[in-house]
Amino acid sequence: MKTLHVGLIGAGFMAKAHSLAYDGMPMCFWPAPAMPHKKVIADLSQERADTAAMQFRFDKGTANWQDIIRDPEIDIVDICTPNDAHAEIAIAAAEAGKHIICEKPISRTLNEAKKMYEAVKKAGVVNMLCFNYRMTPAVQLAKKYLAEGSIGDILDFRGTYLQDWSADPASPLSWRFQKAICGSGAFGDIATHVVDMLRFLLGDFAEINARMATYIKERPVQSGSIDKLGTVKGGDGPRGKVEVDDQCCLCVKTASGAFGTIEATRNAWGRNNYITFEIHGTQGSLYFNYERRDELQVCFASDPGDRRGFRTVYTGPAHPYGEALWPIPALGIGYTETKIVELHKFFDAVVNKKPVSPDFEDGYNIELIGEAAFKSAESGRWEKVGTIG
Amino acid sequence: MKTLHVGLIGAGFMAKAHSLAYDGMPMCFWPAPAMPHKKVIADLSQERADTAAMQFRFDKGTANWQDIIRDPEIDIVDICTPNDAHAEIAIAAAEAGKHIICEKPISRTLNEAKKMYEAVKKAGVVNMLCFNYRMTPAVQLAKKYLAEGSIGDILDFRGTYLQDWSADPASPLSWRFQKAICGSGAFGDIATHVVDMLRFLLGDFAEINARMATYIKERPVQSGSIDKLGTVKGGDGPRGKVEVDDQCCLCVKTASGAFGTIEATRNAWGRNNYITFEIHGTQGSLYFNYERRDELQVCFASDPGDRRGFRTVYTGPAHPYGEALWPIPALGIGYTETKIVELHKFFDAVVNKKPVSPDFEDGYNIELIGEAAFKSAESGRWEKVGTIG
Amino acid sequence: MKTLHVGLIGAGFMAKAHSLAYDGMPMCFWPAPAMPHKKVIADLSQERADTAAMQFRFDKGTANWQDIIRDPEIDIVDICTPNDAHAEIAIAAAEAGKHIICEKPISRTLNEAKKMYEAVKKAGVVNMLCFNYRMTPAVQLAKKYLAEGSIGDILDFRGTYLQDWSADPASPLSWRFQKAICGSGAFGDIATHVVDMLRFLLGDFAEINARMATYIKERPVQSGSIDKLGTVKGGDGPRGKVEVDDQCCLCVKTASGAFGTIEATRNAWGRNNYITFEIHGTQGSLYFNYERRDELQVCFASDPGDRRGFRTVYTGPAHPYGEALWPIPALGIGYTETKIVELHKFFDAVVNKKPVSPDFEDGYNIELIGEAAFKSAESGRWEKVGTIG
Amino acid sequence: MKTLHVGLIGAGFMAKAHSLAYDGMPMCFWPAPAMPHKKVIADLSQERADTAAMQFRFDKGTANWQDIIRDPEIDIVDICTPNDAHAEIAIAAAEAGKHIICEKPISRTLNEAKKMYEAVKKAGVVNMLCFNYRMTPAVQLAKKYLAEGSIGDILDFRGTYLQDWSADPASPLSWRFQKAICGSGAFGDIATHVVDMLRFLLGDFAEINARMATYIKERPVQSGSIDKLGTVKGGDGPRGKVEVDDQCCLCVKTASGAFGTIEATRNAWGRNNYITFEIHGTQGSLYFNYERRDELQVCFASDPGDRRGFRTVYTGPAHPYGEALWPIPALGIGYTETKIVELHKFFDAVVNKKPVSPDFEDGYNIELIGEAAFKSAESGRWEKVGTIG
Repeated sequence: MKTLHVGLIGAGFMAKAHSLAYDGMPMCFWPAPAMPHKKVIADLSQERADTAAMQFRFDKGTANWQDIIRDPEIDIVDICTPNDAHAEIAIAAAEAGKHIICEKPISRTLNEAKKMYEAVKKAGVVNMLCFNYRMTPAVQLAKKYLAEGSIGDILDFRGTYLQDWSADPASPLSWRFQKAICGSGAFGDIATHVVDMLRFLLGDFAEINARMATYIKERPVQSGSIDKLGTVKGGDGPRGKVEVDDQCCLCVKTASGAFGTIEATRNAWGRNNYITFEIHGTQGSLYFNYERRDELQVCFASDPGDRRGFRTVYTGPAHPYGEALWPIPALGIGYTETKIVELHKFFDAVVNKKPVSPDFEDGYNIELIGEAAFKSAESGRWEKVGTIG
Repeated sequence: MKTLHVGLIGAGFMAKAHSLAYDGMPMCFWPAPAMPHKKVIADLSQERADTAAMQFRFDKGTANWQDIIRDPEIDIVDICTPNDAHAEIAIAAAEAGKHIICEKPISRTLNEAKKMYEAVKKAGVVNMLCFNYRMTPAVQLAKKYLAEGSIGDILDFRGTYLQDWSADPASPLSWRFQKAICGSGAFGDIATHVVDMLRFLLGDFAEINARMATYIKERPVQSGSIDKLGTVKGGDGPRGKVEVDDQCCLCVKTASGAFGTIEATRNAWGRNNYITFEIHGTQGSLYFNYERRDELQVCFASDPGDRRGFRTVYTGPAHPYGEALWPIPALGIGYTETKIVELHKFFDAVVNKKPVSPDFEDGYNIELIGEAAFKSAESGRWEKVGTIG
Repeated sequence: MKTLHVGLIGAGFMAKAHSLAYDGMPMCFWPAPAMPHKKVIADLSQERADTAAMQFRFDKGTANWQDIIRDPEIDIVDICTPNDAHAEIAIAAAEAGKHIICEKPISRTLNEAKKMYEAVKKAGVVNMLCFNYRMTPAVQLAKKYLAEGSIGDILDFRGTYLQDWSADPASPLSWRFQKAICGSGAFGDIATHVVDMLRFLLGDFAEINARMATYIKERPVQSGSIDKLGTVKGGDGPRGKVEVDDQCCLCVKTASGAFGTIEATRNAWGRNNYITFEIHGTQGSLYFNYERRDELQVCFASDPGDRRGFRTVYTGPAHPYGEALWPIPALGIGYTETKIVELHKFFDAVVNKKPVSPDFEDGYNIELIGEAAFKSAESGRWEKVGTIG
Repeated sequence: MKTLHVGLIGAGFMAKAHSLAYDGMPMCFWPAPAMPHKKVIADLSQERADTAAMQFRFDKGTANWQDIIRDPEIDIVDICTPNDAHAEIAIAAAEAGKHIICEKPISRTLNEAKKMYEAVKKAGVVNMLCFNYRMTPAVQLAKKYLAEGSIGDILDFRGTYLQDWSADPASPLSWRFQKAICGSGAFGDIATHVVDMLRFLLGDFAEINARMATYIKERPVQSGSIDKLGTVKGGDGPRGKVEVDDQCCLCVKTASGAFGTIEATRNAWGRNNYITFEIHGTQGSLYFNYERRDELQVCFASDPGDRRGFRTVYTGPAHPYGEALWPIPALGIGYTETKIVELHKFFDAVVNKKPVSPDFEDGYNIELIGEAAFKSAESGRWEKVGTIG
């Protein structure tokens, strides 16, 4: 069995999730397309990188991510940094002929996304963006029902990504609120997950009418570079300006003629990782809520009237990836499992030289949607979504 | 105890709900402001009116609704007809000095609404519109939390009214799909309920960005005048054109600066009377779903972090109208109870000569929102909501 | 159309529910089997009875319930008193040839139940016990699925009736805690509803293994005779002994061989009217929760594995009583609607001279179950349920 | 940092879960008590063991589990075999001075459990049983509320473990239905998980009144030794006798005086891994459902009456193990995460030479509960739970 050598850049919480996936992927998907070998992990200092190498079981750490790019044994570059480093690393990796798996969103700006897309296209390397929520078996089951035609032609949909980890104005001004690092706020950080899921399920978006807001306009400056996602308080220190949106709402017309709304906010007290979609078609409806991710709700119009209603289907061996994951529905799909499925798709693509989705082209398209959304928020009008090339 | 004499016009399913409320109101709210006396019921033929008088326990029936207007003993005119008769009857009733309770929406057109509003204002009669869903105790509890400031300043909201009774293209072309009778479709028939609830909770709407659609463009013509709400099929007979919207989505900016969406559709398989709202404020969140109407979900930001989450509060004696209705939460709030609360408010207003809400002014304002919505659906832009006078 | 004259005894909250049903039944079920005429209402004093007559729209009030028995025009005696008066009134009514509708439980003791059963049997009058929760359309839909064989042979079941209105030791010692008036506590007051539903659905109970408890052993004596169900506090006055169970749990073997548990308690903080059952058969499962009474959950084993799960069916026109009640599912089944269905069954039985269920025989059988349960709680063993005659 | 060398026996699906936990534990709990080194994995043939070594990343495989016992470098013996091998392996491991982590239930018989308990006690080795569901953060949060006294004195409880993977009579006769291998059926396989959780939360069980059943009496004999948990069908081959219970129900009195029921079944269509408990105390209530394991529901009696209801708390950084796992509630607790928490407790105990729970003593106590349960199912009476002598 082939081995693929991995260099991972950025040793925060995403490194944990990815490292678990490297180890778990062959355990679940056996025989694996190839065995991952976690060779080098890079972080901002040698000390932190060395610690991360121990914690996440890499052969070694480095404070210089270019070491990874230069290492001829490295097959895969895994980008887990904040958004501001994606483009530089990805382009360098592509030029070095490495396959790339990169955390979402693709980049800070449309221009960066374009360059990344062009770089991987030119280099011909496999490239994947980590919109992992679509890897949830229940979301894949929704796709299966849609592909079979069981839901009919799609009329309407609604998506949300609601959180409250920064609803408290005392939660810190992390990099996720600094435009130079993140590019955008609620849109890039969370709305893009829902955009990705709905594009996956329903196809391209054609026009956008959006509204963006920043409700909490300043926050205590975060000391240190650790992104604790609201679990620490900023205390009495100085406050800095929030430079990005903390709420956004997109009205969407898809290329196929469906209409929907997507809302994302970090100010929704009581909602945690409330990623939902509801889809209505001529033959049925679908509802998914990631907070209860073992289940998909589906209503089939073809059921007799006295027996019709949403079915709550718990995903397991009879559903996508079920054979690879756990042998009983509701044994427990967690964050780890979504990353394992994701990594399997990536390895399968690398080994078998085939495309994978979502890739940088998807990421670029989502940036084009973002561009239309921010433009619409300014103009107050429907804006067409740009197309690649 | 005073008695108020009632003349009711339109003996369909709403007559049943209203009649139950006339009988039940004093039983629940005792002592009642006044005792209702159901004197005359009007329908399209004398035979149907006579039957309705027996069924709904009125003294007598009439095929001529003007009899009710002319009857000096009648205190209250209750309008349960399709929308096309509201204006004529209400204006006649106001001119005759009758107090008026009228089913929603107020009318087919903005112009009719204006005339109705002016007529009752000029006559000085008490007037009420039957947006009964806001009378649900759980909705009134939401209002209490908001009024107390427990939810803080409102940032965002989402409302829906999703149904499926006409999602089947074989369901008949009733008056609810004929513009000359109903004025509008999903907007007037169902979205207005959610608009009313959210105006009640959050205040006036300032700007609208809307989208309207008609997915099912023709339906079998309904024989007879009975509105069976999708429980009958139209068979193989001729088909007629659907003249109104069957889906609408409004983006809303309120006068207070909150932002939200409201979606209504009759094409949502698996949703029945899915009237929901979710409201996010700086101090908490609210969620309501009429399909589970005994409960309100509320999250208070002030709860300690390790104990915070949506509370599912079942309304009962400790909550609005609880003493009047049933002595234990979840004993069962149904459609009847919402109409009983509604009627109590109306009688209280008539007897104590005070305003009641929602009234024709609210109805007129909602028509102005509709005007902005349909205009926006044409222009693709944000449109300002007009103001009265 | 025939008219049946009603005399109702006991003007508490049940009188409200019954009165609403007398008025509402013909409105919903039209043409009605007969028209109810509310003639006389009896309570403990003439003043209270007169007030009740106004409130509930009876022709007159009386402080002497025997007046009702003696009135030759009275067709129906409706017993809404505390349990201690059921037997005396029902036996007198039967001897006078009146048809009887009586609140649950049938009586305080097995002996009283036996006498009541024998009296109505001897007199040949129609008799009904008000276990109204089985009248919920969703429960009737469960019955339909079972009767059709869609659930297969029944293996297991679980039922609960959980409340918290007296979970606070400061809530008053009402008649519901005094053995001489109520006979038993949680068993008679609430468990019997679940016993009734499950007997209705699954057939006779054969053996019982039970446990009874009284957790709160004394409570403040309630001043006045009004039963406020925990909404008032007893204050600092004297405390009296709770003489009955406030929790009970029955293990049940049915005559058909199924096994199940039924638990009832008044000490379950956060549960209000939490009447639930879950039933597992060889071909499927059913779940019902009265707190969300518009819906029934059903799982059919015959569904394909990748589409199987509990369906949430909202009852409406396509389901039992749907045509009579409201034209759209989830428009709202409340307590009132359950009583209207109940009364329609009773009137249908009286007019068409046919049996009705649940009747005194059911009530007597439930007392036999209670006898076995209390005996088992003493013996610690399985006890056989006695049979009538 | 210390390293502990692991030998794992039994390469089925549990080996996958354990292997993921060995890799993930230090990633989540950093710094880890010690680093796991997966040295040897044993299975029935050398070929299968070698494959497992690759799949699960052990240094090597063996067809002879005694190799692991004899290997002086091995610190930890991890038992993932069917139940029939637990005792022999565990006793050998204890005698060799190895620390032991063993899948549940402890053994087939009380006698085996006794010997295992005595062996580890005599050897003084750390020993743990893998009742992983209590490691769910929401269950640990329930424990915290109970320990703080927030729920008060416990009155009642209800637990379930309902599955349907073998509800179909065509699902195969795996080792889980053969008494010589598994010892018991629904009791040992699933009920013990709930028994463990409730003992953890509420303390020792004192008396049991139980009922056991075997509904599906024969099944197609499974070819091969792979336990596919109902995802394969047995086809038309020969049928063998099911020798164990597939449903059990325990009534329980705890040493502290609480009363409850625990039901487990494999015949509940629509239930998958439906591990639930509901606990009522004098100060509040708790509800947990593993199928929605990111959340705990809690009701506090101390909340004001107009704001009281079950709170749905999503566990995250503010709750047990939250800092170690994922930084946002509902990011996703899955099966993997429960095993990671479990393994951290075990490593912590091994390194810091302290007891861990659940251990073999807990397992032995649960077997004593099983003994009382099976005895009660025969006698029809309450049976006292034996104590470790």
